[in-house]
Amino acid sequence: MKEKERHPSASIKKRPKRRLMVLSGRAHPGLAQEVAADLGTELVPTSAYNFANGEIYVRFEESVRGADVFILQSHTAPINEAIMEHLLMIDAAKRASAKRITVVMPFYGYARQDKKHRGREPISARMIADMFAVAGADRLICIDLHTDQIQGFFDGPVDHLMAIPILSAYVAEKYGDQDLAVVSPDAGRIKVAEQWSKRLGGAPLAFIHKTRDINRPNETVANRVVGEVEGRVCVLVDDMIDTGGTIAKAADALMEAGAKDVVIAATHPILSGPAVERLQACGAREIIVTNTLPIDPEQEFDGLTVLSIAPLISAAVREVFLDGSVTSLFGGRA
Amino acid sequence: MKEKERHPSASIKKRPKRRLMVLSGRAHPGLAQEVAADLGTELVPTSAYNFANGEIYVRFEESVRGADVFILQSHTAPINEAIMEHLLMIDAAKRASAKRITVVMPFYGYARQDKKHRGREPISARMIADMFAVAGADRLICIDLHTDQIQGFFDGPVDHLMAIPILSAYVAEKYGDQDLAVVSPDAGRIKVAEQWSKRLGGAPLAFIHKTRDINRPNETVANRVVGEVEGRVCVLVDDMIDTGGTIAKAADALMEAGAKDVVIAATHPILSGPAVERLQACGAREIIVTNTLPIDPEQEFDGLTVLSIAPLISAAVREVFLDGSVTSLFGGRA
Amino acid sequence: MKEKERHPSASIKKRPKRRLMVLSGRAHPGLAQEVAADLGTELVPTSAYNFANGEIYVRFEESVRGADVFILQSHTAPINEAIMEHLLMIDAAKRASAKRITVVMPFYGYARQDKKHRGREPISARMIADMFAVAGADRLICIDLHTDQIQGFFDGPVDHLMAIPILSAYVAEKYGDQDLAVVSPDAGRIKVAEQWSKRLGGAPLAFIHKTRDINRPNETVANRVVGEVEGRVCVLVDDMIDTGGTIAKAADALMEAGAKDVVIAATHPILSGPAVERLQACGAREIIVTNTLPIDPEQEFDGLTVLSIAPLISAAVREVFLDGSVTSLFGGRA
Amino acid sequence: MKEKERHPSASIKKRPKRRLMVLSGRAHPGLAQEVAADLGTELVPTSAYNFANGEIYVRFEESVRGADVFILQSHTAPINEAIMEHLLMIDAAKRASAKRITVVMPFYGYARQDKKHRGREPISARMIADMFAVAGADRLICIDLHTDQIQGFFDGPVDHLMAIPILSAYVAEKYGDQDLAVVSPDAGRIKVAEQWSKRLGGAPLAFIHKTRDINRPNETVANRVVGEVEGRVCVLVDDMIDTGGTIAKAADALMEAGAKDVVIAATHPILSGPAVERLQACGAREIIVTNTLPIDPEQEFDGLTVLSIAPLISAAVREVFLDGSVTSLFGGRA
Amino acid sequence: MKEKERHPSASIKKRPKRRLMVLSGRAHPGLAQEVAADLGTELVPTSAYNFANGEIYVRFEESVRGADVFILQSHTAPINEAIMEHLLMIDAAKRASAKRITVVMPFYGYARQDKKHRGREPISARMIADMFAVAGADRLICIDLHTDQIQGFFDGPVDHLMAIPILSAYVAEKYGDQDLAVVSPDAGRIKVAEQWSKRLGGAPLAFIHKTRDINRPNETVANRVVGEVEGRVCVLVDDMIDTGGTIAKAADALMEAGAKDVVIAATHPILSGPAVERLQACGAREIIVTNTLPIDPEQEFDGLTVLSIAPLISAAVREVFLDGSVTSLFGGRA
Amino acid sequence: MKEKERHPSASIKKRPKRRLMVLSGRAHPGLAQEVAADLGTELVPTSAYNFANGEIYVRFEESVRGADVFILQSHTAPINEAIMEHLLMIDAAKRASAKRITVVMPFYGYARQDKKHRGREPISARMIADMFAVAGADRLICIDLHTDQIQGFFDGPVDHLMAIPILSAYVAEKYGDQDLAVVSPDAGRIKVAEQWSKRLGGAPLAFIHKTRDINRPNETVANRVVGEVEGRVCVLVDDMIDTGGTIAKAADALMEAGAKDVVIAATHPILSGPAVERLQACGAREIIVTNTLPIDPEQEFDGLTVLSIAPLISAAVREVFLDGSVTSLFGGRA
Repeated sequence: MKEKERHPSASIKKRPKRRLMVLSGRAHPGLAQEVAADLGTELVPTSAYNFANGEIYVRFEESVRGADVFILQSHTAPINEAIMEHLLMIDAAKRASAKRITVVMPFYGYARQDKKHRGREPISARMIADMFAVAGADRLICIDLHTDQIQGFFDGPVDHLMAIPILSAYVAEKYGDQDLAVVSPDAGRIKVAEQWSKRLGGAPLAFIHKTRDINRPNETVANRVVGEVEGRVCVLVDDMIDTGGTIAKAADALMEAGAKDVVIAATHPILSGPAVERLQACGAREIIVTNTLPIDPEQEFDGLTVLSIAPLISAAVREVFLDGSVTSLFGGRA
Repeated sequence: MKEKERHPSASIKKRPKRRLMVLSGRAHPGLAQEVAADLGTELVPTSAYNFANGEIYVRFEESVRGADVFILQSHTAPINEAIMEHLLMIDAAKRASAKRITVVMPFYGYARQDKKHRGREPISARMIADMFAVAGADRLICIDLHTDQIQGFFDGPVDHLMAIPILSAYVAEKYGDQDLAVVSPDAGRIKVAEQWSKRLGGAPLAFIHKTRDINRPNETVANRVVGEVEGRVCVLVDDMIDTGGTIAKAADALMEAGAKDVVIAATHPILSGPAVERLQACGAREIIVTNTLPIDPEQEFDGLTVLSIAPLISAAVREVFLDGSVTSLFGGRA
Repeated sequence: MKEKERHPSASIKKRPKRRLMVLSGRAHPGLAQEVAADLGTELVPTSAYNFANGEIYVRFEESVRGADVFILQSHTAPINEAIMEHLLMIDAAKRASAKRITVVMPFYGYARQDKKHRGREPISARMIADMFAVAGADRLICIDLHTDQIQGFFDGPVDHLMAIPILSAYVAEKYGDQDLAVVSPDAGRIKVAEQWSKRLGGAPLAFIHKTRDINRPNETVANRVVGEVEGRVCVLVDDMIDTGGTIAKAADALMEAGAKDVVIAATHPILSGPAVERLQACGAREIIVTNTLPIDPEQEFDGLTVLSIAPLISAAVREVFLDGSVTSLFGGRA
Repeated sequence: MKEKERHPSASIKKRPKRRLMVLSGRAHPGLAQEVAADLGTELVPTSAYNFANGEIYVRFEESVRGADVFILQSHTAPINEAIMEHLLMIDAAKRASAKRITVVMPFYGYARQDKKHRGREPISARMIADMFAVAGADRLICIDLHTDQIQGFFDGPVDHLMAIPILSAYVAEKYGDQDLAVVSPDAGRIKVAEQWSKRLGGAPLAFIHKTRDINRPNETVANRVVGEVEGRVCVLVDDMIDTGGTIAKAADALMEAGAKDVVIAATHPILSGPAVERLQACGAREIIVTNTLPIDPEQEFDGLTVLSIAPLISAAVREVFLDGSVTSLFGGRA
Repeated sequence: MKEKERHPSASIKKRPKRRLMVLSGRAHPGLAQEVAADLGTELVPTSAYNFANGEIYVRFEESVRGADVFILQSHTAPINEAIMEHLLMIDAAKRASAKRITVVMPFYGYARQDKKHRGREPISARMIADMFAVAGADRLICIDLHTDQIQGFFDGPVDHLMAIPILSAYVAEKYGDQDLAVVSPDAGRIKVAEQWSKRLGGAPLAFIHKTRDINRPNETVANRVVGEVEGRVCVLVDDMIDTGGTIAKAADALMEAGAKDVVIAATHPILSGPAVERLQACGAREIIVTNTLPIDPEQEFDGLTVLSIAPLISAAVREVFLDGSVTSLFGGRA
Repeated sequence: MKEKERHPSASIKKRPKRRLMVLSGRAHPGLAQEVAADLGTELVPTSAYNFANGEIYVRFEESVRGADVFILQSHTAPINEAIMEHLLMIDAAKRASAKRITVVMPFYGYARQDKKHRGREPISARMIADMFAVAGADRLICIDLHTDQIQGFFDGPVDHLMAIPILSAYVAEKYGDQDLAVVSPDAGRIKVAEQWSKRLGGAPLAFIHKTRDINRPNETVANRVVGEVEGRVCVLVDDMIDTGGTIAKAADALMEAGAKDVVIAATHPILSGPAVERLQACGAREIIVTNTLPIDPEQEFDGLTVLSIAPLISAAVREVFLDGSVTSLFGGRA
């Protein structure tokens, strides 16, 4: 199919260039810098501060007109600050004529409120998606959403990345020569454990049977192990560690059930309140997380291993920018 | 606070009346008639037929102007016909000036496609929600959605009803004096089994560990039982029975694992293809479903018990119409 | 106007490429293949099947990220299946990050329900436009819409192609040396006959005066000829042939009124129910249609001539992709 | 179904009253006053004037909070003024908390631009619908839209009233004892003539065959009569009379073709430019119109009969306000 | 106009009741309780707390189905928390089927970011309006918005209340017997001073001429007085006091310019950082504010007078609920 | 970051070209031609005329498919005509597949109605923004909006250009060697005067204190000068001159207050009604405006200087087309 010149004279022509620009809020600048460096660029210089009454001010110091911008912010504590700053950056980019706005959320705030547990609750995770859409987000890049259905809360493309290749490669390398079991701390998330099992040579599955009182969040009632774990190194997998209560009790329960050792692997290290203390106190030998959320230096401890998620994010950004395939990064899934 | 008369003379006043009207498509008229009867009314007479090329025609034979209409259609096979007819009825009601349109979906089509299993798939359940919204739905009433997150796909009120009180009351009445176990045929849905356990006096839990090949839907690889079921009457619970393959294999696995008996309870009797044959052939003593979907007389068989969902729907419609509380129907949940 | 380099360093640049990809549903793959071949490409490999309960599954086997996709589906029987599949493909392409989605509808389903004939009917053709918009369609390509106003139902560009150059060229070639009359089977569509008249050297016009009972669709009350047709070869023109009742009766009426011969020309061969039988039985010498809809081999008969619409579609796709002019294909109209 | 008191104490209750208020722009206050009087009320006092540069100012002098407002404006010349004033009144009513805004357009501006006649034209009638929707219109009441499809341009209820009962009753009363023929001045609008024929005892139909040059609007090429009119009183029917060229030439053609007399009946008396002169000069005995548009006293002439449309509008407003049935006003149609 | 019974039998009727319910977030419960008490009701019991990582949880403990809810939250520090909680309450009310949601914002967060001061900034006040709209707000009640144009950021009714009657009545009562001058601390807001002047018997106007460096917010460059203030009690008026820098310097400048005394009056007491200290140190005799924002007991000091805004809010809520007139509260304005 | 070829074979590729096209309505073609000439191109040939009843018809005579179109119309009298034509051109461009539509409004109609001055008024400036958005505007270019907040009425990029560099350069050049004062005719707009002061070497400020009766627009009550003007050349600055009443009285007041001379500078020369007469009669030595609005030859008079705004517009269009920076045109502001 040949393209002949047919346009009339009443116009001016140019060949467009596409520009990739990476912007970051103040919540987790280290990760954003790592991503930018992986891509061979730098973060767009950005002013951001709080007014005396707490209102946030943001401004980009370089033109983003016509650019393919990727705005990265991790929704870490104080989480509502982080989300609002993220939204304001999107509004600024939209009004400054960015060509396309891709919102990168290594951790998606309010993802656990993805349904009504009881009447007269909000569905906060849907509202968050709507907020980002109305602010001007054209597309999202997320990592290990609490439930896959959250993708459907956004009316547009969502590239859903998975940390499991990074985490499981590390585990396989370090513990692959031992008898493993993959354990889900929660019956409802055993599907994820199944994926781990496949990547760890078909290791047997188990789960912890417990009940969570919906009136008292962040507290759990400890429970018994369902499945065979005796004499095995148990890989306890979850998407996030918040206060660490569930996972620490699960580790204890596994040790009581005769596990040889416990290794915890989770994508998102929220590490709220007593989390560090609990993780140190529980019987787990190693806790492996990624840096989707920033970890305070004082939260670091022996046994905590932090793997960088930046290579995964930058690979996805590159595919998005170059019209490649994000699905191919995960062998067809995602 | 006293209401004094302060309106100016340039107006005409009246005290409004609110009218409830129940409309039904052709997919499952029996259920709609039952609901209308429960409410002490009749279905609005409606013309509906197919043109020669399959296009659907609908028209209401009575004025729905200003009415609070409830349009009921179950998404049964041929499912795309049922959905399109449902949508056309909503458009007709909107253009005919109905005051409020509540869409009643005893079974929500495409609910299982609530996420992308692999890249380049649609999120069909979200698209369905958008279709109903754009056609004119103000609110939804659904029953036992495949996942709770689907509520978040609709940007408006969703009253999510649960059949478990109806199903579990029947089971408790009939089998409550025996040693029970509650079994989930799928690790990912064990939360539902937990609710059953609570309603059945804390009966122990189990689940079937199996893998589903995402490239070959409707086929499953049967598996081993996780949890203790020996000597117990196993209540195998699920939200729907489609081809029956999973549930029948689960029933077989339970019998092999030493179950005393198996009782299957599920809300939605899709009963596609070989379902009836498989259910009859498997070792289950009784299969208990509701009539959220119509069941052909030739699909009925000994051992199949159908409980009516109409009282639940009509109770919810009544609460919605009278501005009561649907949550109160479920003791605070929903 | 010189373009100087002025972009800052905090960005990565590339020259974009635009990619055209043609996708097809299962309704009329032959036409789509013809279009792709005309364009010098192939259809994107696509998985599509029905689940046991009739729900449709679709997935593209190649990345469409950043592509200018054209999704072709003809709305043929079972028409609601064809439409739903079309919509799901659009949702999938949107979520897979296609850059622009052009929906190609050789035949637009529900186009005849473009107004309320009576109160409390839907305006189905508008609803269809809304469905495609909400699923993610950026633009439409249609052929010989039942009424031109349907273009206005979609809030975006609609390229409305006309088959008349193809059909009339064939008629002129074959019958141009005889005394012709152009006949509209319906008074309301005589404007189309006027266009035919212009293209056939100013042949005189006639129309059939009949009434359609709005309560009994697909049935017509035959009538008398208005205009002079005696001794002429009558070209009976319409946009579609559904059950063929109207057009066959019109042909009979023309022969009774002294026509020398009747030739039927219509764009869309729906050919429902008794259409083939009726067309064969009526006095028409030749029935000329295009392949906007698939024709079963068993529906073919002597006297039926099928002209391919693929060259027209592929020409339009090419103009759209290359930012040319579709209007120019029709000498300023469209 | 008994309504029991179940609301909690944390609320205040009242029984609402619904208030009907009629508002009018400056384009055709006489009609609005007639409508208000029919309804037994008065127009809401409204300030409206133009600023020095032509910007329009509107303000309601009474509270419309919570009222069911009907805002009437006829789109007469200067038509863009009339439309903009209509839109501003809607915005004011929306922001002043009117409960429901029904837009009454006795004549819908730009209705003739309901499709693209050629490429790169707007579809102005759709844009008008969108303007009214975005300004805040909940619903429309229109009279004899140029094409029925325009109803589908608005995404909400449109009550489409027909003047034919009023016009045809007058004709039947005055000319019913003579031999009548119903004539359409345009082949494309012969469906309307069919309706007239039914109401006039099955009078025979005819139409004028002419071509309109799309590059020179408001001019027509006169033509020959198709159908039998000799010796008959021809009722020449159309939806509107703009410059009167088409209809006057049609009347002349009918007289030349041997008509006994010509009576013209049309809903909308636009009467632009030379219309009055042309109508007086043509051979028609009587021209019957309604007052959907205002007629200047100097435009009145012998032979022009103006029937009031106010009773029809006020009947429709009453049905809408009282949740009755507008369809019933037309025996099931509309 | 008589209302006759015309509805068909296929419906159930009831007379609706309208219920007013007042809900409050955690930012300023005292004000909300005052408002509820003025209305003769109580706040709807509501659960609200933060999860360990800062995510907010809210739930209403009573049904709000069908109610006319007023959700009050003052956007005080930590302001992003307050805004997010407000939004989540709206989402919860929307999904719980509230009939109408009126958002009461005694202080509107981010109101000062109502335009782009420089390129690549957000227009945060517009984004806030969009957030509330998408969450489900039907209408807003605000007090003394930073600029009137913010009303236009919301696409729906905004009742904009003014504190000036409350504040000026107090000033007139206490200082009305002295020679007054009304002073604006900022040339751009002198219109407000004009309104004060009218209410204080035509007291002369003055303003402070200063420049604010847009790169360093919350700091101002002090300046000279424009207008005559010598020997007068200067009423220094503004919409808000944030850090108090501007207003304190203005008070000092007035004293230096020979003012007899300075009285400060402002609606919104943000009182960030050094505000209290500055206000105490400046020469002002009295600082009069309202309680649109909560004031910490430790922020109270001699010379600070807090007038309650609750009567104004409850009057407006009452008018809104009863379909009265909010405009009438201000003699035609607002 | 290297771009490797990775696209599959089922596609056709091309390198896109971006085309700039300038379109103009009939309101101010001279300015549009100047802009096009500055850009080195010509206006797209466009048909535009009024039908007999005043409806506007527009059509582009060249394909705009895929083009980056800039549609320029100044909202001059008859202003509602100008706005409607502007909207119709946008609709036409959208439906003709323009890639991006930038609306250029040298003067934004209804900008002064940017808030409710009293209850039950529209916020017309917001409605105008919504009209342009719904018609298809992707972005706006405006000049000296009446208030900056109007930018926030449009949900997308607004490039807000300022005429002050052009106007102040002229004044500095011609009057810079004299003692100047910058005077605002209205206390509420003194911020603009501050910007002038900066550009004129820190000239002192003054303003005219007057009251405008909101019930009688276009009339003002003249007033006294606040600030020192004696012996100075007063530069009286405003955004627009409508009827000239305010500005002429201000000039008189300044002369009475001892000004040496008065020079008036304003961006938008609306010049309605008695404006020219008033300006000539007042004591001002020179009136300097731009050509954002057309000026009739008969409105020209000695002392009126018109500076062309075309270079500013064409510079902005160029930056927008080339993805440059509009902000840079104003040294960081805008």
